[in-house]
Amino acid sequence: MKSINVEKINTEVSKFIEDRDWDQFHSIKNLSMALSVETSELVEIFQWLKESESNEVSINPKLKSKVEEEISDIFIYLMRIAIKSGVDIEEAVFNKIKKNSEKYPVEKAKGSATKYTEL
Amino acid sequence: MKSINVEKINTEVSKFIEDRDWDQFHSIKNLSMALSVETSELVEIFQWLKESESNEVSINPKLKSKVEEEISDIFIYLMRIAIKSGVDIEEAVFNKIKKNSEKYPVEKAKGSATKYTEL
Amino acid sequence: MKSINVEKINTEVSKFIEDRDWDQFHSIKNLSMALSVETSELVEIFQWLKESESNEVSINPKLKSKVEEEISDIFIYLMRIAIKSGVDIEEAVFNKIKKNSEKYPVEKAKGSATKYTEL
Amino acid sequence: MKSINVEKINTEVSKFIEDRDWDQFHSIKNLSMALSVETSELVEIFQWLKESESNEVSINPKLKSKVEEEISDIFIYLMRIAIKSGVDIEEAVFNKIKKNSEKYPVEKAKGSATKYTEL
Repeated sequence: MKSINVEKINTEVSKFIEDRDWDQFHSIKNLSMALSVETSELVEIFQWLKESESNEVSINPKLKSKVEEEISDIFIYLMRIAIKSGVDIEEAVFNKIKKNSEKYPVEKAKGSATKYTEL
Repeated sequence: MKSINVEKINTEVSKFIEDRDWDQFHSIKNLSMALSVETSELVEIFQWLKESESNEVSINPKLKSKVEEEISDIFIYLMRIAIKSGVDIEEAVFNKIKKNSEKYPVEKAKGSATKYTEL
Repeated sequence: MKSINVEKINTEVSKFIEDRDWDQFHSIKNLSMALSVETSELVEIFQWLKESESNEVSINPKLKSKVEEEISDIFIYLMRIAIKSGVDIEEAVFNKIKKNSEKYPVEKAKGSATKYTEL
Repeated sequence: MKSINVEKINTEVSKFIEDRDWDQFHSIKNLSMALSVETSELVEIFQWLKESESNEVSINPKLKSKVEEEISDIFIYLMRIAIKSGVDIEEAVFNKIKKNSEKYPVEKAKGSATKYTEL
C-alpha cells in the first residue's frame, strides 16, 4: 500500500451519498458517532480472541475479509469528517508525529508497558 | 486533499515505534482498542454540541486544531491495523462501495431518516 | 426504578456463563472491549436521529424495545467488570459525585455549553 | 455488592445537574455519546495490558481506583439514559437473560472461542 487516492474515493462516495440524498444526516457530530460505531464493529472481531490470534488476520481469509470491510467503513467516515472539517489528513499526521516525538522522548518512553501506559 | 502518502507516513511511524520499542504492545487486538479510544476522543469534542455547531469546525481554528489531532491519531492506528492485516485501504474501500451500492439500492434508500435507519 | 438487585442478576448471569463455559474468555480486558461494543450498539440507534427524536424513546415502543436490550447488555458487562474488579458500584458512584462536585463548582460550571465543554 | 440504590443515586445526580443547569445538554442522543466516551476511558486502562494483567485490578489499588472512577461515570450515564427512556434496568436485564438463553442454547454454545464468536 503506497498511497490512498482520496480524490477518487471521495468522488465515488459523494455520488453514492448524493444519489440517496443522505447528506442531510451527515453533520460532523453524526459522522463522529457513525465512525465510533464502525470502529466498534472492528473491535467486536477481536474481543474474544487472544492477542496472538488477532495477529493472524493476514493468513486467515475469512477474518481478513471481515477486517477489510470494517477498515473501509472506518476510512470512509474518517475521510468525510476530514473533508467537512477542512483537514488534510497527511499534513495533520506529520504534525502529530512531530508533536508525539516531543511528548514521548525516546530515553523516557523506551521499555516497559508500565512506562508506556503512564506516559 | 488529493491523496495520502501512506508509505511516507508509515516510514516515520515505524521509526517512532521502533525507537521506543513499542511494537511489542501492538497486537492487532490492542491496536483495535487504541483505535476505539482515539475515536472516542473525537466523539468527545462533539458530544455536547448541536449538529449545526459541529459543522463549524472548518471556521473555528481552536476546534479545528483539536479535530486535526484526533483524526491523525485515528488514521495512524487504522493504517497500522491495515498494514499488519495485509489490507490495502484504497482497494478495500472500492470493494466496499460496490457492495454498499447493492445493499442500499437508490430507489429504496432515497429519502427519510427512518428508511435510512431501517436499511 | 428504585433499585437494582445485583445479587439476583449476578446469580442468573453466572449460571448462564458457567453453563456455556464462557468464563475463560472473560478477562477484564476482554469484558471492557465487549462493553464498548454494546455501548456502540446503543449509539447506533441514535446516530442519525435528531436530539429531539432521541428524546422520544419512552413513547416509541419499537425504539424503547431496542434501547432496553442494549441497556441490558451494557449493564451485564459493567456488573461483571465491577465484580471481577472488587468494585461496589453504589459506593463508587457516591465517591465520584463528591469528586465531581469539587471539580465542577456551581458558580463556574453554571450556564453555557462552552463553559461546560471547557470544564 | 448486593444491590444498587438507584433512587438515592438519581436524587444526588439530578441535584448536581440541576445546580449547574446542564440538563439542556442531556438529550438521549448526547448521553449515548457521553456513555461511549466514558466506556472508552475504561478501555484505555486495559489497551496495552495483557489479559492476565487486566485481571489484577482487585489487588492493585492504583488500577482499582481508576477503574472505580470510570465504572461510576458509565453507570451514571447509563442510569440517566434508562430513566429518560422509561426503562427499568433490572426488569430489562431479566428479559434479556431469558432471550439470550434461547439464542445461545447450551449444547451449541458450550466450548471453544470459535463457536462463541460465531454464535
